[in-house]
Amino acid sequence: MENDSNCGCGTNGSCKGEQNSTCGCTNGSCEGEQKTASSDEGKHPPEMLALNEFSNVKNVIAIMSGKGGVGKSSVTSLLACGFRKKGFEVGVLDADITGPSLPKMFGVKGNPEQVAFGLLPLESSSGIKVMSVNLLMPVEDDPVIWRGPLLGKMVGQFWTDVVWTDLDYLFVDLPPGTGDVPLTVMQSLPLNGLIIVTSPQELAAMIVNKAIKMAKLMDIPILGLVENMSAAVCPKCGEEFQLFGPGHGKEISERFNIPFLGSLPIDPRLSTLCDQGRVEDYESSLFTDFIPQQIRE
Amino acid sequence: MENDSNCGCGTNGSCKGEQNSTCGCTNGSCEGEQKTASSDEGKHPPEMLALNEFSNVKNVIAIMSGKGGVGKSSVTSLLACGFRKKGFEVGVLDADITGPSLPKMFGVKGNPEQVAFGLLPLESSSGIKVMSVNLLMPVEDDPVIWRGPLLGKMVGQFWTDVVWTDLDYLFVDLPPGTGDVPLTVMQSLPLNGLIIVTSPQELAAMIVNKAIKMAKLMDIPILGLVENMSAAVCPKCGEEFQLFGPGHGKEISERFNIPFLGSLPIDPRLSTLCDQGRVEDYESSLFTDFIPQQIRE
Repeated sequence: MENDSNCGCGTNGSCKGEQNSTCGCTNGSCEGEQKTASSDEGKHPPEMLALNEFSNVKNVIAIMSGKGGVGKSSVTSLLACGFRKKGFEVGVLDADITGPSLPKMFGVKGNPEQVAFGLLPLESSSGIKVMSVNLLMPVEDDPVIWRGPLLGKMVGQFWTDVVWTDLDYLFVDLPPGTGDVPLTVMQSLPLNGLIIVTSPQELAAMIVNKAIKMAKLMDIPILGLVENMSAAVCPKCGEEFQLFGPGHGKEISERFNIPFLGSLPIDPRLSTLCDQGRVEDYESSLFTDFIPQQIRE
Repeated sequence: MENDSNCGCGTNGSCKGEQNSTCGCTNGSCEGEQKTASSDEGKHPPEMLALNEFSNVKNVIAIMSGKGGVGKSSVTSLLACGFRKKGFEVGVLDADITGPSLPKMFGVKGNPEQVAFGLLPLESSSGIKVMSVNLLMPVEDDPVIWRGPLLGKMVGQFWTDVVWTDLDYLFVDLPPGTGDVPLTVMQSLPLNGLIIVTSPQELAAMIVNKAIKMAKLMDIPILGLVENMSAAVCPKCGEEFQLFGPGHGKEISERFNIPFLGSLPIDPRLSTLCDQGRVEDYESSLFTDFIPQQIRE
């Protein structure tokens, strides 16, 4: 009987058990017996279920922005950190090849380990699972090659192949923009919600409008808007001040009837921590009180 | 004999004097006698020369950026203010319909007056001549209509039709980007130099590379690079601090062998003054020491 990489059966072909969409077996009787390397035996239970039973992700939340450079990766990382601090099991999926590397921000290095039943994500010091397209791209590869369909395929495989284990929340850092590339990535995952990141330097109304259309197209709730970079924190006196006059995030949120999740100021301490791979050490109350109402816990 | 709107002869057809490219007369004997409205007589000398003799602009400097939202209009305005403070006769030509309105930043309102010999620019409180495409666009017009060729045509007419009088420097706020639209505008004017504005949120190297190619194409010297928004000024304690780690403007300038003109920090006081139409009241030493070496004074 046939099996493929999506099925956790390994290569010996004795595949039995119920066929499902994750398992690629075609005969309908896949047992899903895992063939584990002996070195893994201590770490992973020898009896493995099919991949989708081993990974149980309750909520997949995508973070989008109108363009690059608005701090979307910072927001994604801080969302993950905030939820982790509340005790949830959390993962991040970095699908943005143009932006900062989330593994780098979390200080995790190395290649994800391929085991029989899938790809093991990297893990941060506070236990956040991290996977990134940047980890699997060949060095010096031309980013232009990674257009929507190819990126979508890779992200889709992250969903099926990565051993996320039990997660309450998986945050996905989308490619920037509201065009085909982020849309294709969004369509590669079973999303439960969408968060929009805006900055004062762009037409936020236009972006939110577009995001709402995309979310409606895919029947995903918009969980809210985060305004980034409208303020800054002085490292000397701690004053937080607006950079370009009053921010418009709250106003935009009200206009489009979506929740305003808050404003993230530019803080040199955050930039420094991210450069050092210590985003988890950043003190921020921004997302610790945010539990999306529309999604299950 | 024929005349047209470029020739200052008015409408009666008695056009004599030497034909030149600004005057549209075809018979070669255009006197250039101006027909002035009686109400203007006190303001403008009755004997007018052809337009190009009435406007004498020594240096036309264009300001470009990689994308919108990097403060190009602020830099253009502050360049004009800085040079004005040094005693030069200065004008600004706002060719960017997507960005902030330069007339608004200078607090000048109203429609430019059309007189027989051309279009009178608005004038700021410190005597800076101001003209903007925004002043002549029909209200609620779709900006998309204003593509490269149409915009280039309008900007070209600003050159021939506007009565700039004697200017030492005319600063041109280009449309954002390094593509066809700003290029077309650049080709509509006899430029003497180009200044590039970058921000930390973009690939400055890529932009500078492109700008250098454009400048070479048109045989224009690059006068330098201004780095914007890499730092901010705290309104409470006055501390100037880097927002995203050390700025790269100087490094980029050195790499591409172009002058580094300085770094303009985000200063809430500047935003407020611009909103109030008082950009001339902003205290900045950034451009007061900058006299481009490559262009004549």
